[in-house]
Amino acid sequence: MPTKVNRQWCLASRPVGLIEPSNFTWNEVPIPTPGDGELLIRNIYLSLDPASWGWMQKWISYVPALAIGDVMHGITLGVVEQSRHAKFHPGDLVYGMLGWQEFAVTNGKGLMKLPKRTSIPLPAYVSVFGLTGLTAYFGLLDIGKPKVGETLVVSAAAGAVGSIVGQIGKVKGCHVVGTAGTDEKCQWLTEELGFDAAINYKTESLHDSLSTHCPNGIDIYFENVGGALFETVLTLINLRARIVLCGLISQYKANGLGPSLASIIVNRARIEGFIASDYFHRAEEAIIDLQKWITEGHIQYKVDIIEGLENAHTAIGKLFDGSNKGKLMVKVSEEPL
Amino acid sequence: MPTKVNRQWCLASRPVGLIEPSNFTWNEVPIPTPGDGELLIRNIYLSLDPASWGWMQKWISYVPALAIGDVMHGITLGVVEQSRHAKFHPGDLVYGMLGWQEFAVTNGKGLMKLPKRTSIPLPAYVSVFGLTGLTAYFGLLDIGKPKVGETLVVSAAAGAVGSIVGQIGKVKGCHVVGTAGTDEKCQWLTEELGFDAAINYKTESLHDSLSTHCPNGIDIYFENVGGALFETVLTLINLRARIVLCGLISQYKANGLGPSLASIIVNRARIEGFIASDYFHRAEEAIIDLQKWITEGHIQYKVDIIEGLENAHTAIGKLFDGSNKGKLMVKVSEEPL
Repeated sequence: MPTKVNRQWCLASRPVGLIEPSNFTWNEVPIPTPGDGELLIRNIYLSLDPASWGWMQKWISYVPALAIGDVMHGITLGVVEQSRHAKFHPGDLVYGMLGWQEFAVTNGKGLMKLPKRTSIPLPAYVSVFGLTGLTAYFGLLDIGKPKVGETLVVSAAAGAVGSIVGQIGKVKGCHVVGTAGTDEKCQWLTEELGFDAAINYKTESLHDSLSTHCPNGIDIYFENVGGALFETVLTLINLRARIVLCGLISQYKANGLGPSLASIIVNRARIEGFIASDYFHRAEEAIIDLQKWITEGHIQYKVDIIEGLENAHTAIGKLFDGSNKGKLMVKVSEEPL
Repeated sequence: MPTKVNRQWCLASRPVGLIEPSNFTWNEVPIPTPGDGELLIRNIYLSLDPASWGWMQKWISYVPALAIGDVMHGITLGVVEQSRHAKFHPGDLVYGMLGWQEFAVTNGKGLMKLPKRTSIPLPAYVSVFGLTGLTAYFGLLDIGKPKVGETLVVSAAAGAVGSIVGQIGKVKGCHVVGTAGTDEKCQWLTEELGFDAAINYKTESLHDSLSTHCPNGIDIYFENVGGALFETVLTLINLRARIVLCGLISQYKANGLGPSLASIIVNRARIEGFIASDYFHRAEEAIIDLQKWITEGHIQYKVDIIEGLENAHTAIGKLFDGSNKGKLMVKVSEEPL
């Protein structure tokens, strides 16, 4: 039963390594009153997500950064208790970023209204139909772009997101391999969720097991973990593999994730390898543009020509010690007259 | 003048760190004779490229892996001396992967024929109109997708590829910042090539200088180097930044690049961060599919419900120690009747 006060967890300090209980401070304040255009929500379920770690950092940018003392960010499912907002009515079930607290007043921005109660239990909306399910669904389908017969590897596969990712992978006809930290979890993945294989990363050799269970290489990697697994997967990816960088939970344990790879997630950035020879069939368009830009004075280029094939084996060292200036090449023989 | 023998550099051993002269062995063999459908080429310019390091490795996949004793891979510009191939004639200038040798016989596959001689000096075809220019052009334009007013950072900017990348960036209206290893190179970038700024990574603080010269953050990073610069750039990228992973030359110096990030290049793989909330406006399509898949038995989900908001601050630790099973959430208050 709800209390007469609004009970809250507020940010006491920012985690450096793992999130600790001491990062939070308990607070009791009066239940707020909605103003015009606002509504009062009683939270029912508070979702706890790995993203919380980022939400507690100063540098986070896709949610408002928290100051020390602010109510901790969290996604909740709640019920409207009072409304002075045209679109919401008491009894409506809503889903949104309403924080680690029992009651919240909001203007309704960013709030999702749930469908009228069906047979679906409410926790499903905080799980498979909430952030968890959407993360799995769009991460795999939009970023991973699975195709029938491809091999999908999912890290933290027994986790909330990973378990949905793997199952969607099976729906899409992939060969699905998950990693988890106990034999019991691995068994659940293969025997109940239909994963083709599961690897206990604590007891098995990652490289050997991944090689065995991914005989055709890895086409899609859904990354929740980071660290050694990521490195190992990279040695086994196929041409034009897609790596969905969703989380890096193992990295939070050390001395903080640091903003480096986290920045890739937060900024929805993309890292993409490429090989120029893939574009040779389109060389003409490049050469036409380059020639135009050179003629117009926009582009200069330098060449660094080493005389004699017999010097090639020492000349190549200049590429790596920073001593060459311009495109390094060896003159092997004379130009035609 | 060409000799009567075919002089070659062959692979003696694979580099572990930097390429060393001892990785090559000199070889003299008879000049080969073209068979039916083949042609004999005399190489004029041999391009030396950082990619050579990868071409010497066993695990390379986008060019035929070399065995010890094979003629070293290299791109050359040459002239056709004899032809028994319908499409090529003596005197034709050609460009292709003809190796570190004076003469090569080939069936013409993958060989590009150059336009009839113009005023353009031949080395340009091994430079700005060769692999170097194509790498810069397609890497920046197709992967980097520069837009007017965006900030482009180029590493190894005084290098053959980097200097073209930066100048194309200027053509496209970007604010262009390059890094290089000497003040002289930096001066060349800003005073002659029109870069907006250049940073001497050996004498300046990378973070301070990049922050100063990229006041609006970094939208595109053209990566030739790897290592500390990459890490620093990641702390300054903007939303939906594009990182063109072209080379990782600094990594070759340590104990070999290892197949990890090199694998991203070799496989033209993509790493992309994402945030599920970007897709909330498309939540309905996900929920419809997920619901269908649950009904059909393809997808199961688990929830791990912690009772009481007062336990949230300890419960969240379960996300990081692997002890929770299913979507972790806190039950804050009672469901409506």
